Amino acid sequence: MLFFQLQKEHTIPLYEQLYIGIKNTIINNQLVVGARLPSKRELAEFFSISQTTVELAYAQLMAEGYIISRPRIGYFVEEIDALPFRENVAAKIDFQQTSQQIEYEIDFSSAKIDEDAFPFTVWRKYAKDVLDTPFKHLLQTGERQGELALRIEIANYLHQSRGIKCNPEQIVIGSGTEQLLPMILKLLGNDVLLAFENPGYSPIPRHQLSQLAIPIAVDADGIVVEQLQKTNANAVYITPSHQFPTGAVLSANRRTQLLKWAAKSADRFIIEDDYDSEFRYIGKPIPALRGLDQNDRVIYLSTFTKSLMPSLRVAYFVLPPTLIKRYQEHFNYYSSTVPRFEQHILAKFMKDGHFAKHLNRMRKIYRKKHDKCIEIFSNHYPEITVSGDAAGTNILIAFPHEKSEQELQKIARQNSIYILPLSNYFLTEQHYPKRTFLLGFGHLLLHEIEQKIHKLMTIWDIPKNE
Amino acid sequence: MLFFQLQKEHTIPLYEQLYIGIKNTIINNQLVVGARLPSKRELAEFFSISQTTVELAYAQLMAEGYIISRPRIGYFVEEIDALPFRENVAAKIDFQQTSQQIEYEIDFSSAKIDEDAFPFTVWRKYAKDVLDTPFKHLLQTGERQGELALRIEIANYLHQSRGIKCNPEQIVIGSGTEQLLPMILKLLGNDVLLAFENPGYSPIPRHQLSQLAIPIAVDADGIVVEQLQKTNANAVYITPSHQFPTGAVLSANRRTQLLKWAAKSADRFIIEDDYDSEFRYIGKPIPALRGLDQNDRVIYLSTFTKSLMPSLRVAYFVLPPTLIKRYQEHFNYYSSTVPRFEQHILAKFMKDGHFAKHLNRMRKIYRKKHDKCIEIFSNHYPEITVSGDAAGTNILIAFPHEKSEQELQKIARQNSIYILPLSNYFLTEQHYPKRTFLLGFGHLLLHEIEQKIHKLMTIWDIPKNE
Repeated sequence: MLFFQLQKEHTIPLYEQLYIGIKNTIINNQLVVGARLPSKRELAEFFSISQTTVELAYAQLMAEGYIISRPRIGYFVEEIDALPFRENVAAKIDFQQTSQQIEYEIDFSSAKIDEDAFPFTVWRKYAKDVLDTPFKHLLQTGERQGELALRIEIANYLHQSRGIKCNPEQIVIGSGTEQLLPMILKLLGNDVLLAFENPGYSPIPRHQLSQLAIPIAVDADGIVVEQLQKTNANAVYITPSHQFPTGAVLSANRRTQLLKWAAKSADRFIIEDDYDSEFRYIGKPIPALRGLDQNDRVIYLSTFTKSLMPSLRVAYFVLPPTLIKRYQEHFNYYSSTVPRFEQHILAKFMKDGHFAKHLNRMRKIYRKKHDKCIEIFSNHYPEITVSGDAAGTNILIAFPHEKSEQELQKIARQNSIYILPLSNYFLTEQHYPKRTFLLGFGHLLLHEIEQKIHKLMTIWDIPKNE
Repeated sequence: MLFFQLQKEHTIPLYEQLYIGIKNTIINNQLVVGARLPSKRELAEFFSISQTTVELAYAQLMAEGYIISRPRIGYFVEEIDALPFRENVAAKIDFQQTSQQIEYEIDFSSAKIDEDAFPFTVWRKYAKDVLDTPFKHLLQTGERQGELALRIEIANYLHQSRGIKCNPEQIVIGSGTEQLLPMILKLLGNDVLLAFENPGYSPIPRHQLSQLAIPIAVDADGIVVEQLQKTNANAVYITPSHQFPTGAVLSANRRTQLLKWAAKSADRFIIEDDYDSEFRYIGKPIPALRGLDQNDRVIYLSTFTKSLMPSLRVAYFVLPPTLIKRYQEHFNYYSSTVPRFEQHILAKFMKDGHFAKHLNRMRKIYRKKHDKCIEIFSNHYPEITVSGDAAGTNILIAFPHEKSEQELQKIARQNSIYILPLSNYFLTEQHYPKRTFLLGFGHLLLHEIEQKIHKLMTIWDIPKNE
């Protein structure tokens, strides 16, 4: 009746072997529906095992619905529909495609930071401090908007460095702009019509935006507010301190225009992404638009990706006071996605002034690399126009070339050089006179910059002045 | 002309004082549009400061668009629209409401874990190991789907403990079910019609689901698949191993019914949330539905919230091979929201077998608490029916009462007791004969359980047998 054996010395417990054996017998229709199973005593004797073992196996089979028990009568096989046949072979996985990201020999990515200048020792100290303090209280779910200790430090930093007065109740901590922007959009409601800078950074991929995004042009003064005014957008996502990727700073005039636009209707909002305002090379950082807002129209968004490290995955937004209640109603189920350990390490690091110190230090380091890039292009490549160079960890280089941006990108890739063209950041098809690329220098070593830029220029056949 | 003074001993640098002074003068219309500013030399002499200081201030004012420079002529005030007036006073923040979550004296929440049994020493060791290894390579953005080291450990665990064969390429790591489910829905497309268990857990708040969610009844065998078949849903979110909150196990028959339903159309998918399958008190854990799926219809979703700790914020899903390509196209912008440090700590912890050990240990601890609860109710409270008690860290208690669930909940709250009624988890209004509550015991101390349950029963006037 039962065509399987139990192996007493096996690592799989006996009751589990029994359960698997009976289950397979049922699945393979060797035991028909309604068939009575042996009693626990009978089965125990048959296999020379204890009745408890049989009991455990039967209980599991009952829990999964393979058998039922009729009290005082016995155990019977339940009806189970046959499993559907496999319709087709699963698409073969292209392991080439799915394996780890490719490593380039030269990487002009604008998303990377200087990894040598990170304050390893200090960070390690604070991380160990958190681990060495009894952390029982850090195991359960934390505060929904993020740990209060960290929100206090962020509020202090925003006040001192970005001209923003807010209290910790207005701050929501999350795992990155990509996670927070969709939350903001949900908060603003289903009928939100979002305008984006064009070109611009999009934390939501473009094909998901197709129905949603209204592209607005950007010029040397930042987003063209007059164009925005002509649309029916009720929200706009902008990078006013340092437009990505053009590097434009939103002019004072545009700022007031924009705030006026938003003040005209209660459902209009400005989402200000202040991703890398800390690294400015001329004067002090541009104050946040949020600091000028008197009508609670600006939702301020920022991240520690550039200012500390991308892998930490900590970002936050600051709600205008008028939106706090709505937020708490809409997101009463949400608890901050950042591990509490990380939040407390960062809070302690900031509280003792290390974040401010780190920013000052990094500003100097990035400035040197920035100046080096400018110097190389102005000394050696007369055809190259550099722009977007007032801040951040990348510049724009533009030049005439017979080959297209896509062709140039391909040539770079073939030479193991990573660099992205400006066209990558347009929501619409654009025609601009010169080939334009983003050259990120943040993580390059100062002494390597020259050689790496020359390499790129050489493979692109760009004329060089010695 | 310029009515402000510079304070040379102030902590604010001189150039910044100058910049602020001129900016305010412009904003207050004391300097009109087109007005020529003093030359750098004149201003430096006027304030007895260096020309470099003036240069820095002017550069900042230019960057922000308050002034423009006409080469060889001078600096002039730019046109700036007046700022819009504050329309109305911001809604007052209710600090009572926004402050930290309330602490209850007795907390029957089902979301909490046992915080005394956590392997603090072992976890601390692995965390310090990660910190003590040079971690330069962990600063930049990690792999998009999560660190490979962790995905390998998860794949091993799923194979050994949950009967799921998958490779790391199918796994996506994120910060919680609340973050991952919306990603899965995006992946399935705009026309996804999602069915939910009713009652059930919803990682998306109900009011956001109104247009989307199709409620399907749950009985002792889990979700009623016949009801699902009558809808036009093309995706269903279920908790088959241990239905939340009823505790039902999806029967074998329903499992095959469900897989058949999904196999009928290429756009039908089952999202299996296996949130707490590890803690089963009868037999071994129920194998995952994913393990039976031969047609790539099941997206398996799980979390370390219950099995390790809620504050870690690590969850993951396993894609069927056929969806990997689509995933990589849709989410090419996404990088895992879990800090890389945490991922490597967890991977090391799992690799050395500590996760499996922890689960075995916790199963025993929770079983004792579980048995204690059952014992108390069966010994003392004949009116109480206990159900959903085969697994997990909560049971359901049902009893006749003249007061409504809401009234009973209110009474509990007034006595500083946190407990949630079953009605909380219904997507639709329901009428069931008895008052039913979820009683979570996971984080209660074993020796306190009896006294805490008696306290609740007393304030609810539930008759007690001595």
